[in-house]
Amino acid sequence: MEKVLVAGQWQESLAAGEFQATNPSTHEKLPAKFPVSSWSDVEGMLNGAAEAFQDMRRRRPEEIASFLERYAERLEGARDELVEIAHAETGLPRAPRLADVELPRTTGQLRKAAAAAISGDWSMPVLDTALGIRACYQSLGPVAVFGPNNFPFAFNGVAGGDFAAAIAAGNPVIAKASSSHPATTKRLAEEAILAVQESGLHPATVQMIYRLGHADGAKFVSDHRLGATGYTGARRAGLALKAAADAAGKPIYLELSSVNPVVITKGALQESLPALVDQYFTSVLMGAGQFCTNPGLLVIPEGDLSAEFLKELADRFRSAAAGTLLSPAVASSLKQAVEVLSAAGASMLAQGAAPDGPRCAFPNTLLQCSGEQFIADPEKFQTEAFGNAALVVVAKGTLEIVSVLESLEGNLTGCIYSATDGSEESDYDRIAFAMTPKVGRLLNDKMPTGVAVSPAMNHGGPYPATGHPGFTAVGIPASMLRFGKLTSFDNVRGDRLPAILRDQNPTGKTWRNIDGRWTVESL
Amino acid sequence: MEKVLVAGQWQESLAAGEFQATNPSTHEKLPAKFPVSSWSDVEGMLNGAAEAFQDMRRRRPEEIASFLERYAERLEGARDELVEIAHAETGLPRAPRLADVELPRTTGQLRKAAAAAISGDWSMPVLDTALGIRACYQSLGPVAVFGPNNFPFAFNGVAGGDFAAAIAAGNPVIAKASSSHPATTKRLAEEAILAVQESGLHPATVQMIYRLGHADGAKFVSDHRLGATGYTGARRAGLALKAAADAAGKPIYLELSSVNPVVITKGALQESLPALVDQYFTSVLMGAGQFCTNPGLLVIPEGDLSAEFLKELADRFRSAAAGTLLSPAVASSLKQAVEVLSAAGASMLAQGAAPDGPRCAFPNTLLQCSGEQFIADPEKFQTEAFGNAALVVVAKGTLEIVSVLESLEGNLTGCIYSATDGSEESDYDRIAFAMTPKVGRLLNDKMPTGVAVSPAMNHGGPYPATGHPGFTAVGIPASMLRFGKLTSFDNVRGDRLPAILRDQNPTGKTWRNIDGRWTVESL
Repeated sequence: MEKVLVAGQWQESLAAGEFQATNPSTHEKLPAKFPVSSWSDVEGMLNGAAEAFQDMRRRRPEEIASFLERYAERLEGARDELVEIAHAETGLPRAPRLADVELPRTTGQLRKAAAAAISGDWSMPVLDTALGIRACYQSLGPVAVFGPNNFPFAFNGVAGGDFAAAIAAGNPVIAKASSSHPATTKRLAEEAILAVQESGLHPATVQMIYRLGHADGAKFVSDHRLGATGYTGARRAGLALKAAADAAGKPIYLELSSVNPVVITKGALQESLPALVDQYFTSVLMGAGQFCTNPGLLVIPEGDLSAEFLKELADRFRSAAAGTLLSPAVASSLKQAVEVLSAAGASMLAQGAAPDGPRCAFPNTLLQCSGEQFIADPEKFQTEAFGNAALVVVAKGTLEIVSVLESLEGNLTGCIYSATDGSEESDYDRIAFAMTPKVGRLLNDKMPTGVAVSPAMNHGGPYPATGHPGFTAVGIPASMLRFGKLTSFDNVRGDRLPAILRDQNPTGKTWRNIDGRWTVESL
Repeated sequence: MEKVLVAGQWQESLAAGEFQATNPSTHEKLPAKFPVSSWSDVEGMLNGAAEAFQDMRRRRPEEIASFLERYAERLEGARDELVEIAHAETGLPRAPRLADVELPRTTGQLRKAAAAAISGDWSMPVLDTALGIRACYQSLGPVAVFGPNNFPFAFNGVAGGDFAAAIAAGNPVIAKASSSHPATTKRLAEEAILAVQESGLHPATVQMIYRLGHADGAKFVSDHRLGATGYTGARRAGLALKAAADAAGKPIYLELSSVNPVVITKGALQESLPALVDQYFTSVLMGAGQFCTNPGLLVIPEGDLSAEFLKELADRFRSAAAGTLLSPAVASSLKQAVEVLSAAGASMLAQGAAPDGPRCAFPNTLLQCSGEQFIADPEKFQTEAFGNAALVVVAKGTLEIVSVLESLEGNLTGCIYSATDGSEESDYDRIAFAMTPKVGRLLNDKMPTGVAVSPAMNHGGPYPATGHPGFTAVGIPASMLRFGKLTSFDNVRGDRLPAILRDQNPTGKTWRNIDGRWTVESL
């Protein structure tokens, strides 16, 4: 059985069970056996992390940055091997997806995090010289990161966005692998711990297990030694962890399900129907639809144009080959979600061919309902069908589009395509006014699938898309704030202040708010 | 029976019960009868607030600011009356406390909030021009504010810090009065609703009830029409509300109990023992100790100096008159807390005379335990005794002081007094290293009771001092972030962006982060 990474050592797990991943391209179990950890593994990690945290608090930002940079280099060195392992476990294409998109995104995030650790801008230093009070965000404590199934590198608990943000903010990480790609996670963790050694950080700065029972998971996220948790994944498991963490007063940041509504107005259809078919089709079936920001809910106004749009879209759905899904679990959840939508009254607009071969897959599925149907049973109709399925709501004009949007839960994104000639601005205003409070990111004339690593990105949104409407999981330095603790220093003697709050700007270029004015100058 | 303020009207409550406040100076019930609201009142307020929120989203910041300014003026106009009512309900001195300190603080906060609404700095605009993504915090939705008993004006649900922050961030407020000063709250709400009318805002922008049953309170903070809740008060009631809000995914910001540890080193005692006795005595018994930041836990090293310090402190405790407590409930909780500390093994170092007359009061109480005792039973020994009582921990040197601090829960503040000649820096480092992660605000050589309204203030701290370590309840604009929703605008056409994110800086002086650089310039 594979070993877990606890306090700098690859050690035998005191396992409560074992599991194997499945190759979704063949539907065959992969040979390696991974432990389901018992509490004893977690106990060791929490003790290690508590020690590593005290060590990390004394480190200069440059030391943390040097680990992140070294780790990025190591991942590039191991690229071919990583791509091969991840491909076997996820079915995602070796190229461009894994090798040319996701791995560079991952190393890019690690390097941005390194730069952010050094600049210190993330910590929002505020100096009130008249009152002698200075404040900034500081590291919070060990962070548990639960990675999702759909990004084996870029959101991996031991290499992805939450990992990079937590480390750069000065916190050790305890990673929980996604059960669908444990070997990928192990391979990443191997590089991580070597980079930890090379950069001289505490050996428990990065730790990793593969899987945990539900009760141990709840105990883990509520443990007093932990600072916070970042979780990306399915809603039910996430909410169970949230309940446990909340009860213990431990911050937990969740990135859960989202149907990502897209509204296309009549004017937009008039202007560019074929292009819109193409854009929506590409975005909704990209990666077999397995993105958090997959636009699974399309809302369009009734009429000849939308009928034409849907006919062309349906043709594309039918004729495209069904993509490979990440795991048997994803395939069965997708089937279930489509059943819920159908049972609620959605009709089948298009169903593609049954997938060839033994791989994990599901026919491309396009469902349809009316605005009236949606509004009458919004809970069921906004069931997330994670994968290559989507629901089209055909609404009776703008008023009904607005009602559909008002009946939505929180989402990560929302898009509006409308006429570019200014003829629909009043419709746009009503639609955007209803949509904005429901989404973390509002888009115009653009599909939501891409999530740029930008300081202005919000990969977040109102509950239940996430657990808190004020934080983003993507975008350095903003995503680091989740793993910070606000601390005020009141009348603290100058030479005892954290470097970033002293009179002298420690880097000469860190942005600080001094008496209401942002500046890089020293006092 | 007094009326509640629902959707702009003073209306009869569909009351589930009634209550009267007590004049703590006489221990007599005050004549006015106030309703315990039933759900029907809350339902009306939530519907009103949802409407007011949609209205408020369309307002210019200047309109919101004008309400806040008008309200501040009105409170100044009603000063004498307000002071009289609040004095009768709380026993707090008319002057300087109510008239010259707390009311000016309250109007000052309202005016700072008005300025913050106009400047827009609180919303942290971030512009990424290369990728065409722009983000800022926006209003979140109606905010429920539960005010505490100890600041009838400055933290009142309908006039205090949370109120000002929520309104300035663009959210209607539903205030829940403290049961100990309902008439004060009513009088404030009368001025608030007149100011709402004068400034032309939606009539349900400010609403108020006096009291709610526990089940209705839980239903209230988890309602889908609500954006968030701010609560300041007792721990048990706050945690019950937190459980309900958390389960519904609704942000709730709590400001709960805190013992606010103060460490005084041997060097500090050597340098200025008499001054320290005076400072600690003044801070701990000010306002009969009824401050969130009251330094109820003093940690000092064993020795002749601390014996002398404690002897003088005990004398002061004995000879000072016991202050009047805010209510019979405060007096009985204080008695209970002292019993818990005594039962845990704390010895009585000094107890003042029994209070004169029928007023709500408790003898000044100074308890003592050893470091060893504290570390063996930290949960009991850090029981908050809200009022004129304190616990002194006499520790065996720095190592034990550090252990005491490590055994603490989260606190709002922590102070360290140490030698000023640099001879104790290594002790200071160890003490501060242990204390910092436990507190929201670290002080040197200064008592924590004052909470300046500064942008660098953190009136917050790790759980259970508050519900989240990343937010402050005092300090505009920072406190406004609790009531904001992060929204990214991706590829949104220029003239459709919120004013604050357009190329042109809307005020010419709003700070915005453009491509990594903070500036007030336009694009």
